Amino acid sequence: MGNQLIKPILAIATVVGLSVIGTIVYMLGYGDGSSGRKAAVMNDAVAETVAAAQSADPLPSWNDGEVKLAITRFVTNVTTDGSPDFVPSAQRIATFDNDGTLWSEQPVVQLEYVAYQIKKMSPQHPEWSSKDPYKAVLEGDKDYLVNDYLNNHGKGLHELVLATHSGMTAQEFDEMVLVFFNTAQHPKFNQKYKQTAYQPMLELLEYLRNNAFKTYLSSGGGIDFMRVIAMDTYGIVPENVIGSFATNSFEQVDGEWKIVKGTKNIFMHDGVTKPVGINLHIGRIPIFVAGNVRSGGDIGQLTYSQSNELPNFQLLINHDDDEREFAYAEQDSASLDAAESGGWHVVSMKNDWQRIFSFEEPEQAE
Amino acid sequence: MGNQLIKPILAIATVVGLSVIGTIVYMLGYGDGSSGRKAAVMNDAVAETVAAAQSADPLPSWNDGEVKLAITRFVTNVTTDGSPDFVPSAQRIATFDNDGTLWSEQPVVQLEYVAYQIKKMSPQHPEWSSKDPYKAVLEGDKDYLVNDYLNNHGKGLHELVLATHSGMTAQEFDEMVLVFFNTAQHPKFNQKYKQTAYQPMLELLEYLRNNAFKTYLSSGGGIDFMRVIAMDTYGIVPENVIGSFATNSFEQVDGEWKIVKGTKNIFMHDGVTKPVGINLHIGRIPIFVAGNVRSGGDIGQLTYSQSNELPNFQLLINHDDDEREFAYAEQDSASLDAAESGGWHVVSMKNDWQRIFSFEEPEQAE
Repeated sequence: MGNQLIKPILAIATVVGLSVIGTIVYMLGYGDGSSGRKAAVMNDAVAETVAAAQSADPLPSWNDGEVKLAITRFVTNVTTDGSPDFVPSAQRIATFDNDGTLWSEQPVVQLEYVAYQIKKMSPQHPEWSSKDPYKAVLEGDKDYLVNDYLNNHGKGLHELVLATHSGMTAQEFDEMVLVFFNTAQHPKFNQKYKQTAYQPMLELLEYLRNNAFKTYLSSGGGIDFMRVIAMDTYGIVPENVIGSFATNSFEQVDGEWKIVKGTKNIFMHDGVTKPVGINLHIGRIPIFVAGNVRSGGDIGQLTYSQSNELPNFQLLINHDDDEREFAYAEQDSASLDAAESGGWHVVSMKNDWQRIFSFEEPEQAE
Repeated sequence: MGNQLIKPILAIATVVGLSVIGTIVYMLGYGDGSSGRKAAVMNDAVAETVAAAQSADPLPSWNDGEVKLAITRFVTNVTTDGSPDFVPSAQRIATFDNDGTLWSEQPVVQLEYVAYQIKKMSPQHPEWSSKDPYKAVLEGDKDYLVNDYLNNHGKGLHELVLATHSGMTAQEFDEMVLVFFNTAQHPKFNQKYKQTAYQPMLELLEYLRNNAFKTYLSSGGGIDFMRVIAMDTYGIVPENVIGSFATNSFEQVDGEWKIVKGTKNIFMHDGVTKPVGINLHIGRIPIFVAGNVRSGGDIGQLTYSQSNELPNFQLLINHDDDEREFAYAEQDSASLDAAESGGWHVVSMKNDWQRIFSFEEPEQAE
């Protein structure tokens, strides 16, 4: 499991330069894109203007430009009956990578969960304080995992993931993950992790669903981990979450039949296996796929959507805004090269997104 | 899809015993509310009769009795806002076994496909005529596979399944399966296999969907095999098909990226692993599960639905009609025993189903 997962993770870990930023405006209405803005409105006249602009503009957090125009043009074409590009609603399948595409991936949230949970479990495991990889996590030694990856095939991380993701019932796992999401905060933004979802992408998900698309997560993250927050954060139902998984079991636990999280036959949903996972879960090729630049992990599913005989659309997010989020590139530039040759639409977070997070101070209306 | 939709409609209309006008009226209004009916209605009396028949009986091929009453009562309770048993529509998940639950399993259709395909492929494999297990299939030696199963862990069958289910692209596989379904016939009924779907179960699927249930196949059959016919036969979309699978790959074939059917990490969706497959694909516990008596293969998913904190329903089909279909029991009676202790609802095909197949000569109205 480790290698494919760990590579991008460590790439990130080394790229991240965490700086603590002070002023955060927390706004209510996160997730639906509208009530937060409304709360900030000062008078009725402004409210009316905002409402009008919203109905006219399904993507208010996107700056006008080539990418936004391409998205709305595509959606209009595939949903207009009689259009040569019309696609019946049953076939309007859209898949979205999660880390770096729908929310911030610096740090990778699920790895933060691993560290959080190891610390939480440590009182029951006194031996961990003197035993790597646990010791390294408990002491906050980030170099350990980098060296583990470089010199030991990431076996340490693999062990940590298993310790925190298997051996409990699915229900117990969900409850533990929920505690994490209700308490832990992003180190740069001082917000709970669910708040680091990108406002423009939340609008895009909603826009597609309003046009009868089925929206799916299709991410390297653990399927059970993401399902805990997919509905609240993205409006994505559990059955539309696709991710990495191990084969679980159905067993009697204390006399009751339960799903128990397992360790065998691990399927890593990443890179060239994303089309395989999508095929397994959906059985159709998506017509809309969104991924991001970092590890090349989304080239597979973006390529897959281009093999669709139906009209299709590829969106690739480029992290180039060090001020509002992070700026980082891909060593071999494979994703951007693929975008160039495939005619994919590349989002510049800096230029294409008017606002990135719902907690940002709204810009003044002109 | 047309045939599959219209046939049940006609079957229903005939069974209900409507006049010609009534039949047309009934068809127009089928499944989509009332506007079609209103437009075609000749007089109020007919309209009232039709409306009464429709609202009174969503399951016309089911005989009145305990099982039918239990089904309609359950559906009414979970869909009535304010009822203590109300279940929000997003959580109305229903899973159905396929072989022996939704269509006839004597013979098992996918195994018929294996034999059909081996024969079709044999001219390209002259060595098969002298090499088991191929030789046995080509010569119609049914004892071979039984002995292979009893004495050789079914390795021969495994080899045959791999020969016919892997090594080609997913698209090629779909096309081959479709040829089979468009040509092969059931040996007893002399009908194409899709026609051996049980009329009462088609009505049940439709009834549940009309009440905002999501209906899933959850069967030991191959996921890709069932997807080829799930929509046409059952109105079940590909993304709602759960079954056995191997890990496929995404590869360049003749310069184009394709899903290629693989042989590794085979997941058998059967018995105690059905809850695991359901959890993997849906991430929720179903509230309605239907299976059948034969191998105990559905005890797992029926038990799983009972672990749901929401109101839940279990249906177990017993094959006791040798005249219209087949009569067979389970050696250890495990399924019926589980039904007894779990309070599951057991369908007697002989007594609970007024008609089994859409191709049956309709009974005369009294």
